[in-house]
Amino acid sequence: MIPIITAFERSPDRGRGLARDMRVRWALEEVGQPYDVRLVSFEEMKHPAHLMLHPFGQIPTYQEGDLTLFESGAIVLHIAERHAGLLPDDANARARAIVWMFAALNTVEPPIVERGMAMLVERDKAWYEARQPLLEDRVHGRLGELSSRLGDGDWLDGAFSAGDLMMMSVLLRLKSSGILDEYRNLAAYVARGEARPAYKRAFDAQLAVYAGTTSTGR
Amino acid sequence: MIPIITAFERSPDRGRGLARDMRVRWALEEVGQPYDVRLVSFEEMKHPAHLMLHPFGQIPTYQEGDLTLFESGAIVLHIAERHAGLLPDDANARARAIVWMFAALNTVEPPIVERGMAMLVERDKAWYEARQPLLEDRVHGRLGELSSRLGDGDWLDGAFSAGDLMMMSVLLRLKSSGILDEYRNLAAYVARGEARPAYKRAFDAQLAVYAGTTSTGR
Repeated sequence: MIPIITAFERSPDRGRGLARDMRVRWALEEVGQPYDVRLVSFEEMKHPAHLMLHPFGQIPTYQEGDLTLFESGAIVLHIAERHAGLLPDDANARARAIVWMFAALNTVEPPIVERGMAMLVERDKAWYEARQPLLEDRVHGRLGELSSRLGDGDWLDGAFSAGDLMMMSVLLRLKSSGILDEYRNLAAYVARGEARPAYKRAFDAQLAVYAGTTSTGR
Repeated sequence: MIPIITAFERSPDRGRGLARDMRVRWALEEVGQPYDVRLVSFEEMKHPAHLMLHPFGQIPTYQEGDLTLFESGAIVLHIAERHAGLLPDDANARARAIVWMFAALNTVEPPIVERGMAMLVERDKAWYEARQPLLEDRVHGRLGELSSRLGDGDWLDGAFSAGDLMMMSVLLRLKSSGILDEYRNLAAYVARGEARPAYKRAFDAQLAVYAGTTSTGR
């Protein structure tokens, strides 16, 4: 059965791969699972029909037969549990890979999103400039700790896993800021992710939506 | 094998059950797994020995034989996967329960934490009052959506699950604010969680640390 995911009809990032459907596309490409994409407008996302799929009115959703999921983390974990390639076989290593998925989403992403949100909704506020150091310090705190743990490893814990996929997708949000370049090993880590054929296929598929060519990962 | 978790030697909340070890204690109590607790000071949390266990220098950690985990979400999922009582048997229902774990941590918790962080580190800033509506609106947005989905259900999706445990632990952060009382079904939902015997045992165990009586869940 071909799963169907939802993505923005018009992405705020215009296909730079930062919308959360990218994580799901990437995971599906890593495991070789074809998928279909249904595009939704911002208006449709708040309609009852979409809220049935996603109570918070966001993308992505994931439909596979009578199963409907939301939250990119849960969807990627679902894919990783049902296909080889994104989680180690060893039970302990598998649990540790899942740790990194949660760390990406609950520890590293929040300060990165806050920084982005402030740029989006508080740029015209009197306090915007004065708050920047606070926001940047929180991002640097997490990046410094992550950089120390990664050291000179290729991936966070042994082989590439769904934990790396999630962490790199979070770090990619910082790419245009230049902040990542202050951490040489993290910049190289993200570049290793972007060099993966599955990442490239997923990136091209989401970009094609905005170039108006195609919207499917099949 | 008795797992060992870490918790604050001196919790910023003085035992009100808001530190993240509470989620892990609660999950362990739900499944009837005894555990030991090792208390760490804020200074110890930044030492190399603790950073080996938790690269971001926080609590809780979870040690079980040669397995070490961090991130409360990953620890609770690990416990839920290895014991009956926190995830449904049906594969689809199980995937949906995990969705709610991620939704709690990545969609509902961030605006709640931001509101708390501002109170903690920006209370003396000139912009603090002016930013409050922004912070509150984001929290209300999520609570309104969650309240609509919960409706008059007891739990988020069928029987009580790790998804409910995580969501309630996130909502409990708002308890002293009064915000939750604006959503009658959410307030009742959280009260149902607090009424669970496992919650009470976990709460009492973390409170006992600050009352200086005991620190173990055995």
